[in-house]
Amino acid sequence: MKKTVITISREFGSGGRSIGRMVAEKLGYRFYDQELILEVARESGLSREIVEQYEEYASHKSSFLYALALSNSGSNSFASQVQIAQTRVIRALADEGNCVIVGRGADYILEDREDCLHVFIHADPAYRAKRIVELYGETSKKPMDRLNDKDQRRKVFYKSITMRDWGMSQNYHLSLNSGVIGPETCAEIIAEIVRKSE
Amino acid sequence: MKKTVITISREFGSGGRSIGRMVAEKLGYRFYDQELILEVARESGLSREIVEQYEEYASHKSSFLYALALSNSGSNSFASQVQIAQTRVIRALADEGNCVIVGRGADYILEDREDCLHVFIHADPAYRAKRIVELYGETSKKPMDRLNDKDQRRKVFYKSITMRDWGMSQNYHLSLNSGVIGPETCAEIIAEIVRKSE
Repeated sequence: MKKTVITISREFGSGGRSIGRMVAEKLGYRFYDQELILEVARESGLSREIVEQYEEYASHKSSFLYALALSNSGSNSFASQVQIAQTRVIRALADEGNCVIVGRGADYILEDREDCLHVFIHADPAYRAKRIVELYGETSKKPMDRLNDKDQRRKVFYKSITMRDWGMSQNYHLSLNSGVIGPETCAEIIAEIVRKSE
Repeated sequence: MKKTVITISREFGSGGRSIGRMVAEKLGYRFYDQELILEVARESGLSREIVEQYEEYASHKSSFLYALALSNSGSNSFASQVQIAQTRVIRALADEGNCVIVGRGADYILEDREDCLHVFIHADPAYRAKRIVELYGETSKKPMDRLNDKDQRRKVFYKSITMRDWGMSQNYHLSLNSGVIGPETCAEIIAEIVRKSE
């Protein structure tokens, strides 16, 4: 079936976001990343900050937002509100089609749709560490610790929502090591699979 | 670095072997699958049957070969002999270069070589079940049970040798769902990555 929606899950620092943008440009598809957060915030009535951190705070027990989320329990908790809004927004975008969606568990939310191509982008830690320093600058935390921390949070978040292991090949149609294959080739492979789908 | 060796790990019934053969034809590379078993048998002095079943008997406690392997312990066990011969043969083939190697834990044996591209081929159970019946015919065992059994054996074997989880994207440079992407496109993607590597 023609693939009209591409979801991109990615390890921190692997360049999944820029690969997603390249794919969208190549295919003339819409690109949803930060825009998605704003859309979910609008839909849920919550602040951009809460929505933004939702993907990561699940395992980050020291954060203010996490404490705030816990103080609100049951189906009315912030986590549930964000998750419900996110599911609704992502499904609506998929219905419109011709788009690339980065992160936010879109692969899981849309797993039953045959018009989606689910992609996972990863890379070796050394490549990612170098890249995050170039992109986001140095911090007091060592790059490798920043990676481990982010990886851990995404892993726990993904497991808590999906009950699946983050990064298992079988959860995606295509997984690519962007450091070895190169971002431009990754984008071209994804675009070509979409062009060939029918 | 130019990729001169391609290792293909695959789920049973995913068509990884025929994709490997197509890639070898496209690139003019040598293709090692059954030939590898014969080579390992020669190198180890063990029978073809023992070498053939080595990849799977690790978790198959009822088999005659498993019992035979256990009856021989320590560094002289059949398992060790096969593993040592296999490692030697696979490293020698990689040194010659320009080849595609299917299965036998080659991804792990060659993980530190930068001239290798490590590929994992998987597919949805329904696709694989249909394919194994077409290829190998019906047996008294349901196709889904045959898949689960083989998957389980390969998983346990891989873990016992590598201490890694079988099928994790991060263990490969490229993972492809052959049912969704199609075998021919999978082969073309792999060949194209090799052609572009330098």
